[in-house]
Amino acid sequence: MLLARVIGHVWSTRKEESLRGLKFLVVQPVTLGYDEEGKAELREHGHSLIAADQIGAGESELVMVAGGSSARQGLANSSIPIDALIVGIIDKETFET
Amino acid sequence: MLLARVIGHVWSTRKEESLRGLKFLVVQPVTLGYDEEGKAELREHGHSLIAADQIGAGESELVMVAGGSSARQGLANSSIPIDALIVGIIDKETFET
Amino acid sequence: MLLARVIGHVWSTRKEESLRGLKFLVVQPVTLGYDEEGKAELREHGHSLIAADQIGAGESELVMVAGGSSARQGLANSSIPIDALIVGIIDKETFET
Amino acid sequence: MLLARVIGHVWSTRKEESLRGLKFLVVQPVTLGYDEEGKAELREHGHSLIAADQIGAGESELVMVAGGSSARQGLANSSIPIDALIVGIIDKETFET
Amino acid sequence: MLLARVIGHVWSTRKEESLRGLKFLVVQPVTLGYDEEGKAELREHGHSLIAADQIGAGESELVMVAGGSSARQGLANSSIPIDALIVGIIDKETFET
Repeated sequence: MLLARVIGHVWSTRKEESLRGLKFLVVQPVTLGYDEEGKAELREHGHSLIAADQIGAGESELVMVAGGSSARQGLANSSIPIDALIVGIIDKETFET
Repeated sequence: MLLARVIGHVWSTRKEESLRGLKFLVVQPVTLGYDEEGKAELREHGHSLIAADQIGAGESELVMVAGGSSARQGLANSSIPIDALIVGIIDKETFET
Repeated sequence: MLLARVIGHVWSTRKEESLRGLKFLVVQPVTLGYDEEGKAELREHGHSLIAADQIGAGESELVMVAGGSSARQGLANSSIPIDALIVGIIDKETFET
Repeated sequence: MLLARVIGHVWSTRKEESLRGLKFLVVQPVTLGYDEEGKAELREHGHSLIAADQIGAGESELVMVAGGSSARQGLANSSIPIDALIVGIIDKETFET
Repeated sequence: MLLARVIGHVWSTRKEESLRGLKFLVVQPVTLGYDEEGKAELREHGHSLIAADQIGAGESELVMVAGGSSARQGLANSSIPIDALIVGIIDKETFET
């Protein structure tokens, strides 16, 4: 799963019927890096993407995003065209120093 | 899902029979960036790709694209060789400043 | 789907039985770019890959390639280990100027 | 499958119900490289990601990670939104000199 | 499918039960390039990965690797957590000059 931060929200009126009622957040993947003193820090990498959200993740929260067909498994109806779903809000993370 | 902009259209006469009747648009993924004054802006990233379209997205419109097996879930027949589908036209987007 | 150009052909005698009879072409993904005068042109990006072909695409032709499980949907038997299939030969493409 | 090293651990209280009871480790993909004397060495590449773990991989261990729908096949319930699973702890690796 | 070269082998005692009996090779994806005289040559690109092998590919051999759920289709049991499988050993390749 991707580690990512919520950075925005998109709305779409003209969309596939089966997507009605879903909330779509913009997330920015982050990856682990180390600053000059060797302390762990999370850095942006790659491009932002849109993920459906059923958990109520808020702006700037660190989240876990499942992609591909696995994203659909978390939905009441797993036959809808979704390929990214926020599946957890990270409340604690520890990294190897 | 990818955030992308419609930048073109392709036609293919010699193709898999099951793809007849589908419209194919060329889309350019975009990602969030910030200009010198810290204002959010959408920038191109990665490579353009072809997505099927049933919603009627127009040139330059900002769209949401589902990929992989999830793309097929939005089609009347989910057993056809399509791996990218425009699933929504973005009418509003807000980003964290 | 990927937009790509046919650049070669590979043969494999020792292979999974279920792949017998399939033709394998080497394709090079291309993406849209603009030259100094702002005219659209197609440029190579990323790495070449192998795609199965049932349509009879020829050397240098511009093709549409479906990937992942979607590639298998275009085959008579969708339970064979193929993750890229040429699904159309592009005869015309228009891009936003 | 990805070759990766365990570099951390994340916890998430607010998450999809079906993920309860699973352990989530942060892994850093590594790839083969050669030092000045031509000796094989493993180097970091790409971005870290989160993988579910049922095997009990420990910090810094070299692991094999399956992704996408294949990750779900290793779980008791394959219909949960997981797209990366640690499927083996590498105890020996040999590389071409 | 990926075009890749076999560069090593990994062993894993502590692994998912369903993977017992499978052989795991390390492969390095290669892509087509052209040298100064315009002659086709295969160059390394991206990162090495682990692929299951049932065909008996040997060190340095050029192979075709299927990924994702398609990899599982080549196995006796397609419900095991494998996302890369060597599906052919390339004995001949021709490229556009």
